[in-house]
Amino acid sequence: MLLLRRCHRLTRFGPLNTQRHQAAPAVASCAVRLRSGSSGEDQRSYQHAHGPSWRQALAGVLAGTGAVLAYGLHHHKAEQVDTIEKASALPIFTQEEVTSHRSLEDGVWVTYKGAVYNITEFVAMHPGGDKILLAAGGDLEPFWALYAVHKQEHVLEILAEYKIGELRAEDLKKQQSVKSSDPYSSDPERHPVLRINSLKPFNAEPPPEILTDSYITPSPIFFKRNHLPVPQVDPGSYRLHVEGLPGGALTLSLEELKTRFPKHTITATLQCAGNRRSEMNKVKQVKGLNWGIAAISNATWSGARLRDVLLAAGYGPDVAKRACHVQFEGLDKDVTGTTYGASIPLNKAVSEEGDVLLAYEMNGEDLPADHGYPVRVVVPGTVGARNVKWLGKIIVSAEESSSHWQQNDYKGFSPATDWDTVDFKSAPAIQELPIQSAITVPADGTAVDRSGEEVTVKGYAWSGGGREVVRVDVSLDGGKTWQVAQLRSSDKDQAPEVSPPPGRAWAWKLWEITVPLPAEAQELEIVCKAVDNSYNMQPDTVAPIWNLRGVLSNAWHRVKVKIREDESEE
Amino acid sequence: MLLLRRCHRLTRFGPLNTQRHQAAPAVASCAVRLRSGSSGEDQRSYQHAHGPSWRQALAGVLAGTGAVLAYGLHHHKAEQVDTIEKASALPIFTQEEVTSHRSLEDGVWVTYKGAVYNITEFVAMHPGGDKILLAAGGDLEPFWALYAVHKQEHVLEILAEYKIGELRAEDLKKQQSVKSSDPYSSDPERHPVLRINSLKPFNAEPPPEILTDSYITPSPIFFKRNHLPVPQVDPGSYRLHVEGLPGGALTLSLEELKTRFPKHTITATLQCAGNRRSEMNKVKQVKGLNWGIAAISNATWSGARLRDVLLAAGYGPDVAKRACHVQFEGLDKDVTGTTYGASIPLNKAVSEEGDVLLAYEMNGEDLPADHGYPVRVVVPGTVGARNVKWLGKIIVSAEESSSHWQQNDYKGFSPATDWDTVDFKSAPAIQELPIQSAITVPADGTAVDRSGEEVTVKGYAWSGGGREVVRVDVSLDGGKTWQVAQLRSSDKDQAPEVSPPPGRAWAWKLWEITVPLPAEAQELEIVCKAVDNSYNMQPDTVAPIWNLRGVLSNAWHRVKVKIREDESEE
Repeated sequence: MLLLRRCHRLTRFGPLNTQRHQAAPAVASCAVRLRSGSSGEDQRSYQHAHGPSWRQALAGVLAGTGAVLAYGLHHHKAEQVDTIEKASALPIFTQEEVTSHRSLEDGVWVTYKGAVYNITEFVAMHPGGDKILLAAGGDLEPFWALYAVHKQEHVLEILAEYKIGELRAEDLKKQQSVKSSDPYSSDPERHPVLRINSLKPFNAEPPPEILTDSYITPSPIFFKRNHLPVPQVDPGSYRLHVEGLPGGALTLSLEELKTRFPKHTITATLQCAGNRRSEMNKVKQVKGLNWGIAAISNATWSGARLRDVLLAAGYGPDVAKRACHVQFEGLDKDVTGTTYGASIPLNKAVSEEGDVLLAYEMNGEDLPADHGYPVRVVVPGTVGARNVKWLGKIIVSAEESSSHWQQNDYKGFSPATDWDTVDFKSAPAIQELPIQSAITVPADGTAVDRSGEEVTVKGYAWSGGGREVVRVDVSLDGGKTWQVAQLRSSDKDQAPEVSPPPGRAWAWKLWEITVPLPAEAQELEIVCKAVDNSYNMQPDTVAPIWNLRGVLSNAWHRVKVKIREDESEE
Repeated sequence: MLLLRRCHRLTRFGPLNTQRHQAAPAVASCAVRLRSGSSGEDQRSYQHAHGPSWRQALAGVLAGTGAVLAYGLHHHKAEQVDTIEKASALPIFTQEEVTSHRSLEDGVWVTYKGAVYNITEFVAMHPGGDKILLAAGGDLEPFWALYAVHKQEHVLEILAEYKIGELRAEDLKKQQSVKSSDPYSSDPERHPVLRINSLKPFNAEPPPEILTDSYITPSPIFFKRNHLPVPQVDPGSYRLHVEGLPGGALTLSLEELKTRFPKHTITATLQCAGNRRSEMNKVKQVKGLNWGIAAISNATWSGARLRDVLLAAGYGPDVAKRACHVQFEGLDKDVTGTTYGASIPLNKAVSEEGDVLLAYEMNGEDLPADHGYPVRVVVPGTVGARNVKWLGKIIVSAEESSSHWQQNDYKGFSPATDWDTVDFKSAPAIQELPIQSAITVPADGTAVDRSGEEVTVKGYAWSGGGREVVRVDVSLDGGKTWQVAQLRSSDKDQAPEVSPPPGRAWAWKLWEITVPLPAEAQELEIVCKAVDNSYNMQPDTVAPIWNLRGVLSNAWHRVKVKIREDESEE
C-alpha cells in the first residue's frame, strides 16, 4: 500500500512539470519500480541557488526522451570530470536519508559515484521528462548505463550544480558491490557496413549507395532503430497477450500464432520518422539521432494478420463502437521495467485492406533479433515507430498508447514551435508518413568524369498510407528544369512485382535516370522529388518544414556533384 | 450494318492520331451518331498544303476537350471573320459528296456557313481529340454551338486554311432550315455574385472573401463546374440504372432510391482539379478554365450510400474478384449523345468508410439543377470530376471509364511534359486530391491601415482522401517566419462539428489569424500552407508543379498587401 501511495503521489505531481513531459505511469508497474524504504517524511530542504541563466542555458538542450541522444556529442570527455566535486566539504548522508527523498513533495535526491544531489528543481527541465523520478532516492548509474548519452561533460556539469553532500562511505561500498551490468551486453552482432548513429540503444543505417542495390533490403543491412536493449526472448516460453476492452482476450504461443492463423506475406517499406534529420540539423539544430537518408528499407514480412487475431480474440465488428485504438507493448524495457509502446487507429488494425501483420518472418527467415524476434507488428504505410518489435501485448482501447513515444515524441510541429512553446497535445501522433524520395547515387560532394558524357542518378521513393509512387522528377540544375526517372518495383533482373491494389502500395519504388552532362556546367545540383497517386508532392525546401524534433524531413533531396574535366584537356 | 462498319473504321484509325487523343467510342452510340449516306467510296483527295509553321503554331493551342475552353479569349471577334472566304473560286460540292468523307481513310470533310473544308490533317491536332470525327461529313455549327469557345478569330483562321470548296446552294438552304437550337437555353438562372469563367458550359466561382464567410457554402454560390448543358430531368420518369459485370442489375426510380435505402448525410468539400489554375498560368500558359482560388466549396449531402445500392443490385463481397472500378454516366450529353462519364476505384465505392453517396439533397434541399438534380454521386475526398452529376447509370467494371475526362484529362504530369510529349496513359487519373489551402482575406493587391496595428488573415484548408487538416502556418514575410492559425470546423457562432473518424475527414477547415503589423514593413507578402494528418505539406512554389493542364495547383498561396500609413502621419 505504501508503494501504491507513493506512486499516486508521483502521478499527482505530474502537472508541476512542463506540459511536454506528461507521462502517466501505470500504478501497478510503478509499484514494481520503487524500492521499499522509509516513509520519507523528512522535510529538510537543501535549496540550491540556480539563477535564470541556468534555466536559459538548459532550455537549449531540453528534449523528449529520444532527444537525450543529442547528449551523445561529447561522451568521450565524460569520464574525466567524474571527480570534480570530490574535494567538497558538504554534509555526509546515509542511503536511508537519500532514499527518503523521492518525490517532488519531499524533494528528489539521487546519488552518483558517492556524491548526493538534490535535483528537485531540475526535474521539470529534464530532457527525458518525468522518467527522472524513477531514479529518485537511488543511484543514477544504472539509468545512465541504459542511456549512455548522459555520460558527457555538460551533463555532469549540470549535475554538479545540484550537489548537496556525500554518501556515507559504507553505503557507497554497498552500492558498488551491486555492480550494474550493461543491459546492452546481449545485443546481437551487427553488420560492419552499417553506419552507427547510436550504439546504446543501437541505431544504424546502411550506406545509401548500397541501400538501393536491392529492391528487397537484405536483413543485415536493413536500418536498425532500437529505443532500448534488445530483449532475449525464448521462443518456447514466448506468449502474446491480447486484451483490452471487455469482449475479448487471448494468449498465444509462438506455435499457435503460426499454426492457428493463415500466413500472410506483404512487401513493405519501413521508414523512421527521423529519416533525413541531418538535413534539418543544417537549418537549425534539432533533437534526435542524426539520420542520413537511409533510415528506410524494404523487406518482405510474413505472419498472421492482426485482424484475424483480433477476431479470434472476440473483437468482432462491434468493437468500433467502444474502441478507437490498438496499443502494442514491446518486451524491450528500461531498468525500471517500462516497455516500449505505441498504438495505431483501430480502423487500420481491423481493415481487410490494412494488411497489419503480427510478423514472425522477415525476408523468408525468422525475424532477426534486431527486428523483433520472435514477433513484431508490421503496420504498412505507417511510421516505423508504430511497428512495435518483440511484441508482448496487444491492447484494444478507447485511448491511444500512453507511452512517451506516442504522446510526447514522433509528432510534427510548425517551424515556429520551440521547446519553450511546444504543446505535444496539439499535434496528432504521426501515423501515415508523407511522400518521400532521395538520391542514393551519386553521393553528395563526389565528382563525375566529363569523358563519361552522362551521369546516372539513382534513388528511392515511397509514400505512406499505401499511396503508390507514380512519378519521380529529377533535375540537374537545382530544380529549374526536370526530367522523369524510370521507376521499378523489383530487382533489375527480375519481373516487376504485381501492381498493388489501390491504397495498398506498401513498398517503395527504386528509380534511375541517365542524363547527358550539360556542356557548360562545372557542378551539378541534382534534385529529386516524387509524386504519389494522391498527387501529393514533396515540399521544395527544408526550412519551412523544420521542426524541433527533426521528424518528417521530406523536402526535395539535393546533392552537389562536380564535373571532373578529362586530364587530356587540362 | 453499314453504320457499324463505319464505326469500326473510325475506331481502327484511332492509332493514326497522336497518343493523347485516344478515344474509344462505343460502337452502339457511334451508330446513332452517324447519319445514313452514300457508301463513301469517293477517293478524290484535295490535299491542302500545310507547312510545318502551321503545325508549330497549332502545337501551342493543342489541348484536351476541356482545354478548348482556352479558345474563349477572343470570342467577341468571332463573327467578323465568318465570311473571309466568301469570294473564293473553289469547286462546288453537294451535301452527298461531303457526307461521303467522314473517316481518316476517306478524308474528313465538314461544312461551316456554306463552305466545305477537308480537315483530315487537322484531326490529330484538334485540341478536343477524336471528338472532331463525330462532326465528319456534316456541319460544324451544332458542335460549335455546344462549345462556344470555337467562335473566335484564330479558330476560324485555322479552319480557313483547310477550305476546299463551297456547298451547293440548295444544300446550304436545307441546312439552314434545320436551325440549330442553343443547347444551353434551358440552363438555370445563376446567382449574380458568381464570377463566370465560362458561360457555355457554365463554370463559375464565388468571390473568395464571400466563400469563407460560411462553413457550409450556400448552394447558390457553391462553385459550378459543368462540362455540358444542364439536362432537364423529370423526377417522375427518372430512372437510375445499375449494371455491369454479370452478377447484378437494378433499375431504381427516384422514389425507390429515397425509400428503399437508408438516408445518409455527410459534410464534404468538393474541389475542381483546376482550382487555382490561374497561378499556373502566371508561370506559363496552361490549357483550361482560368480558375481563381474558389473552385472549392463545402456542403452537406444526403442520399443513399452507393455501397447499399450496389449490395441491393447483387454486388456482394465477391465483386472485387472481377471488378476494380465503378463507372458513372451522367445524363448531360453533347449533340452527338456522348454523356459525361467518370469512374472511381471499386474499393472506395464499396467501403463502409468510403461514404460515397448517391445524393439527392444538398444543404437539406433537393439538389439544385446545376448540382445534378435529381441525383448525383458524391465521392468525398475525391476530385470534383468524379462526382458525376445528373447520374443516369452506374456500371461495375474491370476497367476505368473510357470517357475523355477519365482517360485524357484530369491527370497530372511533370513540368517537363508538353503537348508534344504527353502520354496520357503514363499517369493515373486523379482521384484523391493533395493537401490544399488558400488565403481568402485580405485579397491580393489590397491595403491595410497602419492605424489598425494588426491584420486578420482568413482562408480555407482541405486535403483529399479523408485526411484531416491538422495545422495551417501563416507567414507575413513571404515564408521566412511562420505562425500557426486557428482552425475551425463550423460557423463562428456554432459548436464545432464532431471530429470525424480517422480517414473520413471529408470537410474543409476554415482558419483565421490576427497578427500585429510588423513595424518596418511597407508591404506584406502573406503566405499560407497547410498540413494534413499524414503530414503531407504543400509545395513551396508553383513552377516545379506546373503541368500542361494546370491541375493540382496547390503550392503555398501568396497575396501581397500594402500597409497604408495613417493620414495624420503623412
